[in-house]
Amino acid sequence: MIRLAILGSTGSIGRQTLDVVRALKGRFNVVALAAGNNVTALEEQAREFKPRMVYCGREEEYLQGRIADGAISGRWADMEEMASHPDVDLVVVATVGAAGLAPSLAAARAGKAIAIANKEALVMAGHILTAEARRHGAELRAVDSEHSAIWQCLWGESPESVERLVITASGGALRDVPDEELERVTAEEALRHPNWQMGKKITVDSATLLNKGLECIEAHWLFDVPLERIEVLLHRESIIHSLVEFRDGSVKAQLGVPDMRLPIQCALTYPERVPEANVPRLDLKMIGTLNFGIPDHARFPCLDLAMQAGKRGGTAPAVLAAADEVAVHHFLAGFIGFKDIARVIEDTLNAHDETGNPSLEQVLEADRWARAHAEDWVKAKA
Amino acid sequence: MIRLAILGSTGSIGRQTLDVVRALKGRFNVVALAAGNNVTALEEQAREFKPRMVYCGREEEYLQGRIADGAISGRWADMEEMASHPDVDLVVVATVGAAGLAPSLAAARAGKAIAIANKEALVMAGHILTAEARRHGAELRAVDSEHSAIWQCLWGESPESVERLVITASGGALRDVPDEELERVTAEEALRHPNWQMGKKITVDSATLLNKGLECIEAHWLFDVPLERIEVLLHRESIIHSLVEFRDGSVKAQLGVPDMRLPIQCALTYPERVPEANVPRLDLKMIGTLNFGIPDHARFPCLDLAMQAGKRGGTAPAVLAAADEVAVHHFLAGFIGFKDIARVIEDTLNAHDETGNPSLEQVLEADRWARAHAEDWVKAKA
Repeated sequence: MIRLAILGSTGSIGRQTLDVVRALKGRFNVVALAAGNNVTALEEQAREFKPRMVYCGREEEYLQGRIADGAISGRWADMEEMASHPDVDLVVVATVGAAGLAPSLAAARAGKAIAIANKEALVMAGHILTAEARRHGAELRAVDSEHSAIWQCLWGESPESVERLVITASGGALRDVPDEELERVTAEEALRHPNWQMGKKITVDSATLLNKGLECIEAHWLFDVPLERIEVLLHRESIIHSLVEFRDGSVKAQLGVPDMRLPIQCALTYPERVPEANVPRLDLKMIGTLNFGIPDHARFPCLDLAMQAGKRGGTAPAVLAAADEVAVHHFLAGFIGFKDIARVIEDTLNAHDETGNPSLEQVLEADRWARAHAEDWVKAKA
Repeated sequence: MIRLAILGSTGSIGRQTLDVVRALKGRFNVVALAAGNNVTALEEQAREFKPRMVYCGREEEYLQGRIADGAISGRWADMEEMASHPDVDLVVVATVGAAGLAPSLAAARAGKAIAIANKEALVMAGHILTAEARRHGAELRAVDSEHSAIWQCLWGESPESVERLVITASGGALRDVPDEELERVTAEEALRHPNWQMGKKITVDSATLLNKGLECIEAHWLFDVPLERIEVLLHRESIIHSLVEFRDGSVKAQLGVPDMRLPIQCALTYPERVPEANVPRLDLKMIGTLNFGIPDHARFPCLDLAMQAGKRGGTAPAVLAAADEVAVHHFLAGFIGFKDIARVIEDTLNAHDETGNPSLEQVLEADRWARAHAEDWVKAKA
């Protein structure tokens, strides 16, 4: 039995992780569950999986009460304790936003296997997280479909064989919306992803293509490939999840139906591949056609903003991620328009005086500064 | 320096193998060169590469004379000696037809690394060749683009993870020719392959789709997957060279521009990937679209004939390959029509009383019987 801590268990990735755990009965023991704010869902999960540790970012008093009642088994513990607990083998970091950073670092320092679905930990502090993982023998397993694809394509290959990573992008919910309409796009429209069922924040990030830029920065840290050798390929069908070009000209791709349970299961059962009965099989002869192209950098400036921040390095990616989190929050609430997201990010990045090779403290300080700056931008606009 | 014996050095694969050797100067030493009948080309190659052993299926006297003259370095040796010689590390079996069988077996018994481009050795006697290779620790490396693709997709994977092999097929030179015109197709038309530059025999086999059936049988032996779990996928562009579906639903594919130097180099330099400067890189955004479909089994009956022979097993695949060799020979000479190729094969297979788990002698006897039967069919028709 592999003992799991699932951080962010009530979000989209967290719930699908529990689907995989249910489907592969007897293989995993859920030792810890942590949610951001959905205490009701967490309570239900805790009743089903009986973890020894629970956490919720809100309603701690309520949760403590339910534990005291005996309605929830186990005890309250924070995410860093869960991530580093000796009774945990594999930590699934499926939290959204900067909250994933501290527990990811705790898991790395404890030498855990880490299934990492949280983008921000790698984007904000990839240099610290990967260094700590190396130092303590912690294994980082990709969960994002794109990074899982690259990871799978690299099995059995040596790092020096890699020439280029090619990350595919569906183009997001607004890929076919003309430029002049983008200004007036609503949150509802931006949330209609053509291929993937995901959380709101990441779905909007897909629509702006900021998400693809974050993925490039993540891939840079996960696979130790410079951003100059990471390319984004438009691929509407989301069937090829990403590709690796090797220096002999050979290219490997990983494909599958767009269902997050596949990469989640892959990260959970690695190095084994376990039969998966609940997800339909890929059938290319029925799909018929796969299309490829170049993303529209002019229409979706967030992609270039992210790549520039990634190449600038230091605290710039943390500022990028923080400004985006604020901007998407206000876009979803209807306070700013779709194109304002890029404006918030650009203005914040331009105003930022970055620190090279920052400490965790400096990263978190840049994160706070960027959030405040982005909030001010939104207030000034309102 | 890796010491090479190249059997079939004047054919399409042989010449491209020497291109790779030239491009990767200093990495390989060509110790032995063998040709089927093109003694002029062999002589030229021998002058360039100064092998210690040479062979030609014809003109032995002439070749001996040139050796005596000093025009050619080295000495005459047969292919079995070359394949098992202690000074050879890697044997490239690029001969066409049944001639590759004996040297492949010799190389397997000598425990060599074998880059196998010869289909017939595996089709006729896959059970013997793979058993000998296992017994003597000989490593079989695929050269065919499809098998190279599968091989590469399997690196770092365990055999029990494999669910299905999916072999792609361009559809060959006649894929768009209506059924009613197939009867009158000329050799010239059948030799116009849309994507690949190859030898004549294999180009006609591509047009009939018999080649794809042979590849399924080869894949069965090379990767130990039953034919029931090997599928042919029509893919006009020949960019995805083949795919592997794993039991967790994940699919890996290997892609590249259609240039045989890539899989040849891969087999030669394995496990290293060495930079390749002479072949253009794959650029999916320029290619734009990849198409997939189902091969037309009714219009190209050779595919089903081959799959049936493969499933029948025993001496049936040897009979299939022999009847095809005779039929293609007579088609190229203009004696029979394109659709007669399938008729020769079907008639020969129907008349054959196969032996299960045959010895090499029984395989060769079946081969002789099938050739005679097929020749009779052609004579009766003329």
